Amino acid sequence: MAEVTSTLNLLSSDNPVFCCYCFWAGLLVLKMLLMTLLTAARRFSKKSFVNPEDLALSKAAEVSFQDPDVERVRRAHRNDLENILPYLLIALAYITTGPNAIVARLLFCIVAISRIFHTAIYAFRPVPQPSRSIAFFVPFFITLYMTFCVIVKMAKYV
Amino acid sequence: MAEVTSTLNLLSSDNPVFCCYCFWAGLLVLKMLLMTLLTAARRFSKKSFVNPEDLALSKAAEVSFQDPDVERVRRAHRNDLENILPYLLIALAYITTGPNAIVARLLFCIVAISRIFHTAIYAFRPVPQPSRSIAFFVPFFITLYMTFCVIVKMAKYV
Amino acid sequence: MAEVTSTLNLLSSDNPVFCCYCFWAGLLVLKMLLMTLLTAARRFSKKSFVNPEDLALSKAAEVSFQDPDVERVRRAHRNDLENILPYLLIALAYITTGPNAIVARLLFCIVAISRIFHTAIYAFRPVPQPSRSIAFFVPFFITLYMTFCVIVKMAKYV
Repeated sequence: MAEVTSTLNLLSSDNPVFCCYCFWAGLLVLKMLLMTLLTAARRFSKKSFVNPEDLALSKAAEVSFQDPDVERVRRAHRNDLENILPYLLIALAYITTGPNAIVARLLFCIVAISRIFHTAIYAFRPVPQPSRSIAFFVPFFITLYMTFCVIVKMAKYV
Repeated sequence: MAEVTSTLNLLSSDNPVFCCYCFWAGLLVLKMLLMTLLTAARRFSKKSFVNPEDLALSKAAEVSFQDPDVERVRRAHRNDLENILPYLLIALAYITTGPNAIVARLLFCIVAISRIFHTAIYAFRPVPQPSRSIAFFVPFFITLYMTFCVIVKMAKYV
Repeated sequence: MAEVTSTLNLLSSDNPVFCCYCFWAGLLVLKMLLMTLLTAARRFSKKSFVNPEDLALSKAAEVSFQDPDVERVRRAHRNDLENILPYLLIALAYITTGPNAIVARLLFCIVAISRIFHTAIYAFRPVPQPSRSIAFFVPFFITLYMTFCVIVKMAKYV
C-alpha cells in the first residue's frame, strides 16, 4: 500500500489544502468577473464607450478613452491580471510541493482578502495611500514566497 | 481497492471530462495566440507601430498609438485576457468538484465557441450589436456558474 | 497493481517532467513579478504616475500617461500576460498528454530563457531588432506546438 499512498493526489478534493485554494481562487475569480460589470456600469453612468457600435446604448455622441473613473477601474482590473493570475498558477505548483497545511491555508486566505481590499481601495478610494500599496504588497510578497518555495523545491529535477 | 478508486485522478487523461476541457482549452489558447498575429498583420497594413525600433519594418515615419483598427484588435485581445484566462483556471477547479460529465462537456464546448465568435465579431464586425454582447455574456455566466459550484463545494474545507 | 500504475499522477512531484515545468514556471512568474517593481522604479525616476493619490510620493505636479520609458515596460509586461500565462496553462495540459520527457524538459527551458531575454531586450534595448522578434517567436511557436499536441491528443474525447 506504500506505493498507493505515495501517489496521493495533491491536486484533488482529497487534499484539504487544495480545497481551501479552490475556495479562495473562486472568490478571486468572482471578484475579477465583477470588474467587468463595474466597468460596464461606469461606462453607462459616464457615457464613456470605446467602440463606435456601442454608442447607441447610451445616446453618447462619440467614443471616449479618457474618462478618469472608467480608466481607474480598468487599471485596477489590469492590476488583477498582472498579479492574481500568476498567483493562481504558482499557488497550484506550491500545493504540489506539499507545504505545511496551516501555513498554506493561511496564505491563501490572506492573499484573497488583501486583493479584494486592493480592488475596493483602487476603484472607490475610501481611504488614502499607502493603504492601496499595503493591500498590493502583502499578496505580492506571499506570491514571491510561494514562487521561491517552488523554485527551490523543484530545482533538483532540472 | 476502494482506496485506490477514491484517488482516481480527475486532472488526468483518464478522466474524459478533463480531456474534453483540454481540447477546448487548446482551441482557446490557439485563438489567443492568433490574436498576436492578427495584431501584427494590422500594424503592418496600417503602418501603425508603437516601438521606435520597429518603424524600419514598414518605412513608417513615427510611432502611432491611435489607429482604430489596431486598437480594436488590442481590445479584443485584452478582453480574452480578462475572461478566458480566469475561465481556464476556474474550470480546472470545477473539474475537481466532480461535475456531471455531460453538463461539464457541454459547457466547455459552448464557452469555447462563444469566445471564438466574440473575437470574430469584435475584430471584424460582420454583424451589429448586441451580437458581441451575447457572445460575451454567455461564457461570462457559464464562468460565473462554475465559480459558484467551486465556492459552494469547497466552502466546508476553509 | 496495474490499475494503480495507470493512475500515476502526471501533475505531481512524482513526475520529473512536471517538476521541471514547475521550476521554469517559477522563474517566469518571478520575472513577471519583477516587472511590477521595474515599472514602479521607472515611475519614480521619471515622476510619471497615473493615479492622483500617488503624486505625493514623488512631488510630481500632475498625472502622466505618456512617459515612453514607463510605457515601454508596461508593453513588455502586457506582452507577458498575452504569452506567458496561456503558455503556463497549455503546458499543464501538454504534460498530461505524456510527452517525451527529454523534449518536454528542453522546451520548458527554451521558453523560459527566451522570455527572460525578450523582457530584457524590450525593456532595456541592449541589442537592435530583430533580436526582440526572435526572442518572441521562439516561445510563441513552442506554445503553438504544445497546443497542437494537446488538441490532437484530446480530440477523440470530445
